[in-house]
Amino acid sequence: MLVTVANHRPFNMIQNIFKIRQPIPFSRKYIASAGAAVSSNSISIEKNGSKFTWNDVFQISSNNSSSSGDLTGFFQKIDSCNRGSERRSDFLPFVVEDQIVGYVHNGFLDQLNKFKEVFTYIKDDKYGSQFGHVTLHSALKTPESRTEALGDVVQYLGEEVIPGIRNELYPVTSSYGGQVYFSLERAAAPYFGIKAYGIHMSGYVERDGEKYLWIGKRSETKPTYPGMLDHLVAGGLPHGMACAENVVKECEEEAGIPRSISSRAIPVGAVSYMDIEGYRFKRDVLFCYDLKLPDSFIPENQDGEVGSFKLLPVTLVAEVIRNTQFFKANCNLVIIDFLFRHGYIKPEDDGYLKLLQSLRSGDCS
Amino acid sequence: MLVTVANHRPFNMIQNIFKIRQPIPFSRKYIASAGAAVSSNSISIEKNGSKFTWNDVFQISSNNSSSSGDLTGFFQKIDSCNRGSERRSDFLPFVVEDQIVGYVHNGFLDQLNKFKEVFTYIKDDKYGSQFGHVTLHSALKTPESRTEALGDVVQYLGEEVIPGIRNELYPVTSSYGGQVYFSLERAAAPYFGIKAYGIHMSGYVERDGEKYLWIGKRSETKPTYPGMLDHLVAGGLPHGMACAENVVKECEEEAGIPRSISSRAIPVGAVSYMDIEGYRFKRDVLFCYDLKLPDSFIPENQDGEVGSFKLLPVTLVAEVIRNTQFFKANCNLVIIDFLFRHGYIKPEDDGYLKLLQSLRSGDCS
Repeated sequence: MLVTVANHRPFNMIQNIFKIRQPIPFSRKYIASAGAAVSSNSISIEKNGSKFTWNDVFQISSNNSSSSGDLTGFFQKIDSCNRGSERRSDFLPFVVEDQIVGYVHNGFLDQLNKFKEVFTYIKDDKYGSQFGHVTLHSALKTPESRTEALGDVVQYLGEEVIPGIRNELYPVTSSYGGQVYFSLERAAAPYFGIKAYGIHMSGYVERDGEKYLWIGKRSETKPTYPGMLDHLVAGGLPHGMACAENVVKECEEEAGIPRSISSRAIPVGAVSYMDIEGYRFKRDVLFCYDLKLPDSFIPENQDGEVGSFKLLPVTLVAEVIRNTQFFKANCNLVIIDFLFRHGYIKPEDDGYLKLLQSLRSGDCS
Repeated sequence: MLVTVANHRPFNMIQNIFKIRQPIPFSRKYIASAGAAVSSNSISIEKNGSKFTWNDVFQISSNNSSSSGDLTGFFQKIDSCNRGSERRSDFLPFVVEDQIVGYVHNGFLDQLNKFKEVFTYIKDDKYGSQFGHVTLHSALKTPESRTEALGDVVQYLGEEVIPGIRNELYPVTSSYGGQVYFSLERAAAPYFGIKAYGIHMSGYVERDGEKYLWIGKRSETKPTYPGMLDHLVAGGLPHGMACAENVVKECEEEAGIPRSISSRAIPVGAVSYMDIEGYRFKRDVLFCYDLKLPDSFIPENQDGEVGSFKLLPVTLVAEVIRNTQFFKANCNLVIIDFLFRHGYIKPEDDGYLKLLQSLRSGDCS
């Protein structure tokens, strides 16, 4: 379905936004809002005990622009996506057809040991761990049989062990585009340390040489990260779907961007991270896209996952990332990558190369 | 000195270039040339026994655009900047103030052993090599005394051992922006495995949604890589100069780009590589810049290092990189990075993530 451009406010109001040359502190009145099913300026979110509204976002001064050169706040955001590296040795390689496709926590292995017809534990150091590795039972030879067996295991373990089941299958590979050994429920991926791929798109507008990013505020009813700030468009990459196709699909669902516009989105690279929390080992690779939007376009969420959108100067977005935890954690990486590619972070800033490297801390393959 | 825009050909001729929507094969007549001291279409270059002219460049068909998805030619170019990794263990760490600042070949160490008052060899495995490490004599405590002592050594060894002396000092650090322990002659840097930093700028023009890159052909009289294709602007980063300042300086010298335009160049990241050849261990980090140029601007070399410039469609540049060895080796990396950031290489292309990672194969710090 092609969605027509939302037209919540007259075109000239949007135009007016851009006549203002980045007021500092950036006042709410100059910032476009769109698609808000609720009055966006009064949204109040509870997340991890913290509350914030768009009002709080606008209070962040873009006065201390990125050129001030202190990258500490950016490093902190990257660290928060790459926790637990010191517990890496608690995980055993998960091997299929002689390839490491994931990692399983030795505590979670106790759960898997109940399923003798699905998993086999082998005590060796062939795959780099002195504690051995886990593989699938030799009877599970086809992708279909493995997908079915693992699906049964996930269902048996249930929400208590693996919460947030989505009934969405992720391909299990050793690297992107490589052989798919089987498919696994999305929520189970981090318990098996399976690499997960996603697409994240930065939607921006340029006017008089200044760039503005469309930022979403996640719905309060979303099970994950309710009320937090997000990209214009992002989504996991389901089994069998190409990145470009997924971008067009998510653009339509998440922001009402018709194919005529979304097909202009360009791939600009990828970021990756590895995050260990309890039994979960997230190994995510995010393909990054940029979409330069027409001035007149106003995004409108179609699937209820976004509460509202606002158009913010990139300099303000940089300050929000640096000074708050308002963004969903992995969005920070993608926006920091945007800041690099668009010149908002400079070689003269202390730690430039280290920060650049850290955007691909995970296994980016 | 501010250099005025060169005006070799009427503005409307340049305009005409862009009315053509990428003819395939791309014909010479649609491609702008500039600053040619010699007739650019008849330049003939000898380099490593191979000859090529601009004519040969235009013969490369942009028919097989990057979307064909075969990245093999790009991988080859990256490999040719990262040779000799299997000989890594022939090099010993070069340590100053407990930091590894470089690597010295065990054969070159024999040369250095003549200078007992400058270098000290210590047989231990403290810095990761079982063959020990090299450090400076304990009497050399200040950057000035070290710079002087190393300068004397380089001079003594002479052109036979270290050819191409430039009388240009590079800072010796363990990472960019860190403490500078001393300075070293540029030509000697790879013999001591010192990391060298440079700036590389892609100058491009956009018209009707198509991008074109200004490409230089190096002067036939340049001692290094004569006649090969090059960026619009590139240069090593001398001691004490910030990247942004160096970009403006090189823009003026290499392409006659006035500060009013060059100050708009934006930093977009960095690439790195490690190349071992004989006693030389090149560990280079190149800061990448993009400069979107006005349609009307025509570059003109000021320092005699570039023979001529031409404006080529990015798709043609991609094919030249993929199918020839016309570009100076490390320029390939920077342009491949450009192709990534501008969407000419796609996640659907086999090896996308591996190629992306390989752009920072060296110690990017």
